[in-house]
Amino acid sequence: MIRNQVGFTPTTKSESIVFDVGGTRFETYTGTLKKVPNTKLFALSRDSPNYRPKTNDYYFDRDPSIFRGVLDYYRNGTLHFPNDICATVVRRELDYWGIDEKHVAPCCWEFFKLYSERRATAELLSKAMGFEHGTGRRGRNIRRQSMFEKYYSYWICFALLLSVFTTIATESDAMRVPAANPRLRFNDTDNPKMVRFETTDPHPVIVAVDLLLVGFFMSEFIIRAAICPNRWIFFTSSINIVELLAVFPQAIAINLRYLVPDLSSYPKLYFAYWILLMFNIFRVIRLLKFGKYYVGLRILIVTLRASATEMFFLVYLMVVGAVVFGVAFYYCEVWTTATVIDMPTTIYWAFITMTTVGYGDVVPKTIQGKVIAVLCALAGALFTGLAVPVIADNFDRYYRQASVILMRHRLGLPIMTMLPGATKTRDQAWQW
Amino acid sequence: MIRNQVGFTPTTKSESIVFDVGGTRFETYTGTLKKVPNTKLFALSRDSPNYRPKTNDYYFDRDPSIFRGVLDYYRNGTLHFPNDICATVVRRELDYWGIDEKHVAPCCWEFFKLYSERRATAELLSKAMGFEHGTGRRGRNIRRQSMFEKYYSYWICFALLLSVFTTIATESDAMRVPAANPRLRFNDTDNPKMVRFETTDPHPVIVAVDLLLVGFFMSEFIIRAAICPNRWIFFTSSINIVELLAVFPQAIAINLRYLVPDLSSYPKLYFAYWILLMFNIFRVIRLLKFGKYYVGLRILIVTLRASATEMFFLVYLMVVGAVVFGVAFYYCEVWTTATVIDMPTTIYWAFITMTTVGYGDVVPKTIQGKVIAVLCALAGALFTGLAVPVIADNFDRYYRQASVILMRHRLGLPIMTMLPGATKTRDQAWQW
Amino acid sequence: MIRNQVGFTPTTKSESIVFDVGGTRFETYTGTLKKVPNTKLFALSRDSPNYRPKTNDYYFDRDPSIFRGVLDYYRNGTLHFPNDICATVVRRELDYWGIDEKHVAPCCWEFFKLYSERRATAELLSKAMGFEHGTGRRGRNIRRQSMFEKYYSYWICFALLLSVFTTIATESDAMRVPAANPRLRFNDTDNPKMVRFETTDPHPVIVAVDLLLVGFFMSEFIIRAAICPNRWIFFTSSINIVELLAVFPQAIAINLRYLVPDLSSYPKLYFAYWILLMFNIFRVIRLLKFGKYYVGLRILIVTLRASATEMFFLVYLMVVGAVVFGVAFYYCEVWTTATVIDMPTTIYWAFITMTTVGYGDVVPKTIQGKVIAVLCALAGALFTGLAVPVIADNFDRYYRQASVILMRHRLGLPIMTMLPGATKTRDQAWQW
Amino acid sequence: MIRNQVGFTPTTKSESIVFDVGGTRFETYTGTLKKVPNTKLFALSRDSPNYRPKTNDYYFDRDPSIFRGVLDYYRNGTLHFPNDICATVVRRELDYWGIDEKHVAPCCWEFFKLYSERRATAELLSKAMGFEHGTGRRGRNIRRQSMFEKYYSYWICFALLLSVFTTIATESDAMRVPAANPRLRFNDTDNPKMVRFETTDPHPVIVAVDLLLVGFFMSEFIIRAAICPNRWIFFTSSINIVELLAVFPQAIAINLRYLVPDLSSYPKLYFAYWILLMFNIFRVIRLLKFGKYYVGLRILIVTLRASATEMFFLVYLMVVGAVVFGVAFYYCEVWTTATVIDMPTTIYWAFITMTTVGYGDVVPKTIQGKVIAVLCALAGALFTGLAVPVIADNFDRYYRQASVILMRHRLGLPIMTMLPGATKTRDQAWQW
Repeated sequence: MIRNQVGFTPTTKSESIVFDVGGTRFETYTGTLKKVPNTKLFALSRDSPNYRPKTNDYYFDRDPSIFRGVLDYYRNGTLHFPNDICATVVRRELDYWGIDEKHVAPCCWEFFKLYSERRATAELLSKAMGFEHGTGRRGRNIRRQSMFEKYYSYWICFALLLSVFTTIATESDAMRVPAANPRLRFNDTDNPKMVRFETTDPHPVIVAVDLLLVGFFMSEFIIRAAICPNRWIFFTSSINIVELLAVFPQAIAINLRYLVPDLSSYPKLYFAYWILLMFNIFRVIRLLKFGKYYVGLRILIVTLRASATEMFFLVYLMVVGAVVFGVAFYYCEVWTTATVIDMPTTIYWAFITMTTVGYGDVVPKTIQGKVIAVLCALAGALFTGLAVPVIADNFDRYYRQASVILMRHRLGLPIMTMLPGATKTRDQAWQW
Repeated sequence: MIRNQVGFTPTTKSESIVFDVGGTRFETYTGTLKKVPNTKLFALSRDSPNYRPKTNDYYFDRDPSIFRGVLDYYRNGTLHFPNDICATVVRRELDYWGIDEKHVAPCCWEFFKLYSERRATAELLSKAMGFEHGTGRRGRNIRRQSMFEKYYSYWICFALLLSVFTTIATESDAMRVPAANPRLRFNDTDNPKMVRFETTDPHPVIVAVDLLLVGFFMSEFIIRAAICPNRWIFFTSSINIVELLAVFPQAIAINLRYLVPDLSSYPKLYFAYWILLMFNIFRVIRLLKFGKYYVGLRILIVTLRASATEMFFLVYLMVVGAVVFGVAFYYCEVWTTATVIDMPTTIYWAFITMTTVGYGDVVPKTIQGKVIAVLCALAGALFTGLAVPVIADNFDRYYRQASVILMRHRLGLPIMTMLPGATKTRDQAWQW
Repeated sequence: MIRNQVGFTPTTKSESIVFDVGGTRFETYTGTLKKVPNTKLFALSRDSPNYRPKTNDYYFDRDPSIFRGVLDYYRNGTLHFPNDICATVVRRELDYWGIDEKHVAPCCWEFFKLYSERRATAELLSKAMGFEHGTGRRGRNIRRQSMFEKYYSYWICFALLLSVFTTIATESDAMRVPAANPRLRFNDTDNPKMVRFETTDPHPVIVAVDLLLVGFFMSEFIIRAAICPNRWIFFTSSINIVELLAVFPQAIAINLRYLVPDLSSYPKLYFAYWILLMFNIFRVIRLLKFGKYYVGLRILIVTLRASATEMFFLVYLMVVGAVVFGVAFYYCEVWTTATVIDMPTTIYWAFITMTTVGYGDVVPKTIQGKVIAVLCALAGALFTGLAVPVIADNFDRYYRQASVILMRHRLGLPIMTMLPGATKTRDQAWQW
Repeated sequence: MIRNQVGFTPTTKSESIVFDVGGTRFETYTGTLKKVPNTKLFALSRDSPNYRPKTNDYYFDRDPSIFRGVLDYYRNGTLHFPNDICATVVRRELDYWGIDEKHVAPCCWEFFKLYSERRATAELLSKAMGFEHGTGRRGRNIRRQSMFEKYYSYWICFALLLSVFTTIATESDAMRVPAANPRLRFNDTDNPKMVRFETTDPHPVIVAVDLLLVGFFMSEFIIRAAICPNRWIFFTSSINIVELLAVFPQAIAINLRYLVPDLSSYPKLYFAYWILLMFNIFRVIRLLKFGKYYVGLRILIVTLRASATEMFFLVYLMVVGAVVFGVAFYYCEVWTTATVIDMPTTIYWAFITMTTVGYGDVVPKTIQGKVIAVLCALAGALFTGLAVPVIADNFDRYYRQASVILMRHRLGLPIMTMLPGATKTRDQAWQW
């Protein structure tokens, strides 16, 4: 479907043809123009409205700098353009001259592609920031907040943070007081965390605040669920599921504790109780709601989503590396009597070494194990050093573009402008 | 307020108009010029002094390369310029042709913005280096030092360093000698640091030097406070507050020690004494005074201040990450009897893992905990890998620009030059 | 062989000569053209077909922007070109004007070289991705897969992963069950890994799956070996050697175990048995077979091969650094009674410190040792910071180019296009 | 000394003047040219040989693209040039038009400076690689090696490596055999390293090889010292001093051991003996001799020397950071009874935390200590992340340029070419 460019032959001497493009003079042989069919210049004849008999040339009211490259394409069969000109301008001119962008030479292609990528990124980012396409105005669904809504959103943020704080404070040694009646009944436990949990209580103030917060979030959720227009959308929205999991298991756990005071006497129920407590982690995950208010986080999420391939590559490298080094380490260290390790442990060790964390809970004892450890650390430094910059590069690009979008938004300028209707706007042609 | 660029229609055939811009010929239709009102070219007529009847063209004594882009703006409604031309030149020409810089297309905007950012950075940096705006000369407040001042500043630097050294030496095992009369009275202490402090003395030479230094800095501070023209400015300057906190608590502590030889017998007083000793940290913070003499440090401070958003982003990512992983880790590790940890400890663990420090004082014992540890380490590598390069990029840019400024300063060249008075200098138009 | 460019003298006033290159007018003195012999312009005379008597100029149907640089070469003796023009275009024009690319000035040379490097990379990458040169089509040896082959390849991937999983599961505490008849006979072993191995058994399901997989891979290998056209190529292919080492030692080990139930009573045989088990590592290395299906991995391999010099440099720096710091550390720490270390251990310590892993199994106890540790850590941060980005840069470049190639492949565009036959295609002139 | 550019006033209407620069037409007012005195164009009159009465213009056989910027300088008072043109070309043209390079605008200055930096780097690198200036030929002092010299240099490399290996092997547990007569006499030693040293011997083969090597290097050094033309240069050359320190203390130590068999009975002599052994470290430092043969290492040394400012900055940041965090950590941790630390130890801890090594030998026990630890780790990640990339950037630049130099050297091309003698070659004008 692409013409074989090797077929380009030097033009035989034929009649000269002169162009005046925006005031600049160009000259070539008529034979040159006949090399690429189905283009504007191919079809050019003296009947064209661009022909000016007085000066015997063809006048075009266009930018001369791109025309230079266009004419060169007719001469040599490959389409290049100086990379100090915006690719959107190039595309507009190619549209005008009737040349498909597929003919852009491979060496200029990457540069050309960069700009169409930028356009895609701009759309992604402006969507993530809640702007309508190309207008720089907030979308309809993000209408102007009332005073009440503003202070309410501040309160929600504060309540979310407070709820994370109470979670941490509840499980913090420094904020627990000796329990009035130590509840630990089943004597076989030697788990110091459970012993602490049953022999001490969180500070009463923290308990009270936590109860109030659980109550508030529960009622807020129920009200929102009641008044929402479409319950299906409501309950399948990820943020609401997180909300649900953050609030209701806590409520159940609190009730369970007060209904069954001697909870720790029933091991299975006690286990279920702790599982319910584990849902506290959703309180922290709920913090991602802040993304609604914090632009940096939304850029990060867009970046990570767009860098899925690179993220997978990083994880793939780390996993394959960790398994190779972990298995090798196990067979090296199997000969020493000093350690009690199995293969999952050595793979964990390999991960911890490759990320250069190096806890030191598993360390090589044999010479061969030490060699593996050194290789593993070097491979880790190399693998992170290869994959992370690619993602960081994406982030940096997104971050810069997002600042441009934000700045233009603040100045009331359009984020993306459409190409004039006169040009063939194939894919709606956002101009970036 | 911005014209809807979609409205640009291809110009209908109308009269041709020819420009001679600095010797280069441009041609377009008169209709094209009528598309953008309130600009120099829109208002152009044969009465203009630029009209030359002999050649029937309009002569402008301007740079032709920017005019190309300007004319293209009339043709297509978007303003682009080749990115090998300085944005200051572009801005100057846009001023001349009466086109607002808001019309620069989004794709060229980032490049355009970069230059105005550079101008802002140049001002920040030259202020930080003590130059007056745009002159390359040291500001009035940084007058030429006399010989005495020069050697005195050397001595201050030496005294500051010596004072940090004595602080460290005083608390260093290797430089303490057994005390003539071990002073430890209250027998219930089992804190080895306090026992050492009371049973050994710092080397007498160090004590003497330290006393002399405290005396010197105290009198220097009092003299400066006495002769300063405005005591309010003096005592609210951050450097003087640090100075005050570095000197006077030490003096009190020394007096306290000599007034109450059996200090350790009074636990509360002893506690107060140690709090006074803690102010020693201001002796080290005082080292930032060096910034006055060391350019690199001032660039760093400017960078960190300008990168506040990115710094906050890094800290935000680390804090959210550490809380998420810390809470998850706690609930994973709660099932093992091998460790005694509470939630603040696991959050600390998550920080130490994410920064890949990995002390190993808290390590996962369960399989699920190990998985969390690996994910935490990977997330940490990713988060630092995303946020630090953005700050490092800022620093690199500032650092390079600062070297240019320094070099130009040494060559006696202006750091920033103003645009000629003929142009409309809206915001005083520093040229960068 | 290169003309001494210092010899360039300013041209004496001689006759003017005018060129019309693609419509743009150039003018110089005829004497200027006589400075560089053996070129097209040197040989120019009025008999040339390019001479147009009517306008008294020489017409060339070429790109004027490169000609500017060419003419400047005649004037000043050094060949520069604006770096916004593709180096392939420059090379094509230099060919046309008969100027050797060796005359490109040193300052433009790096830019020029970058493009010829890109061409080489494109060839490497398209080979690694299985494309034929310059066509964008899959090579002949990668014919279209049948439905059966497709599902078979999925199964192979699954079986490879499963085989790695059984290896790990077999040596995992959590998946072992107490042995029916604990087999440990020789009582002198105190190696906890061997004790575990003999007193517990892997879960029977895992044993069964593992046996089936060994059987499958063994028969698959034998069948492939039987039907392969050339057995020499088959057995010298690295992937088949890995396959062989992954499968047959396992088969022998399994047989050995069942033939000699009280294996652990014969120490030497038992040692041999463990050596056989160690070949399990090849099961993991066999995962690299995935590279056949995963493009990212193939790019990585191409990158690492192309970055051999830089990899060697990184390893060289780390090894020299580790030996210097390790030896220094040994002689510093020899004076303390707190540690039992020898020199191989301190070199291992230096590696672990330089990669910032820092297990903490070997730590400095003396002041001088601590200083060495700090220097070692800083040197490590510096060395990795210097060498890894160079490799990462290569990877980034390869990765971007590979995405361009893949995208063009998907669009059915040629990956590399040949220069038109009219030009002198010295080294087959792939156009990148 | 620099003209006040604000003084530039718009030119009043005056006579037009037309230039033909290499075929391109430029036009301005004669008044414009009178703005900058002491330049070629200022002095232009109809008597000039460049004046052509026929066309009433001034012809210059120069590159038109730079002239555009030059003319713009006369119009607007600031000198810009497109950054796709090599700065060397710009400089050459500025010389021709008689304009001082000081007038380059601040925004183009950094780009301009980059090229003159490249020239300096090229000189540094070609010196480091042993090329003569600008010729691409090996300097006189690096004459062609004879066959004997070549193999001798291989042998020296091998001997150097072997000598490092014997050093390590001598102090390696795995290569020591029980001593025939354990020599340890003074019973008060409890240093396990000394006990090992006296109760075991290195393997006899290693001892023999080491003796031979010491003998060889000693005689080689003496012969070289004997035949060298200038003994002063010989003994002040750093490489010879390292050689001396690597060889002779060893020889003395060996003699001491054999003259005083019961060495360990005399503590002071024994201490001296170990000090002599410590000089073994120079055997390893001697490896830097390889730099003579390994280009990468020489580039690294040039880079590190050129990055002295940045290295100092990194070290400064780390030291100030470590002292601030170390002192703060000490005063935080002083309240816990769990640790025995003094201030040098906490500063060491801060270093180990900032470099993210994190051994775990010193860990925070208090909440406030943990907060300091987290801040310290973040600051460390930030400081290394800021300073190392600046050095890595230098290295990358040097590395690339060195590859260009090497490639041009192999192709027989000049590394640097001089500007034509016709131009004013102020500072000898190497062209880069």
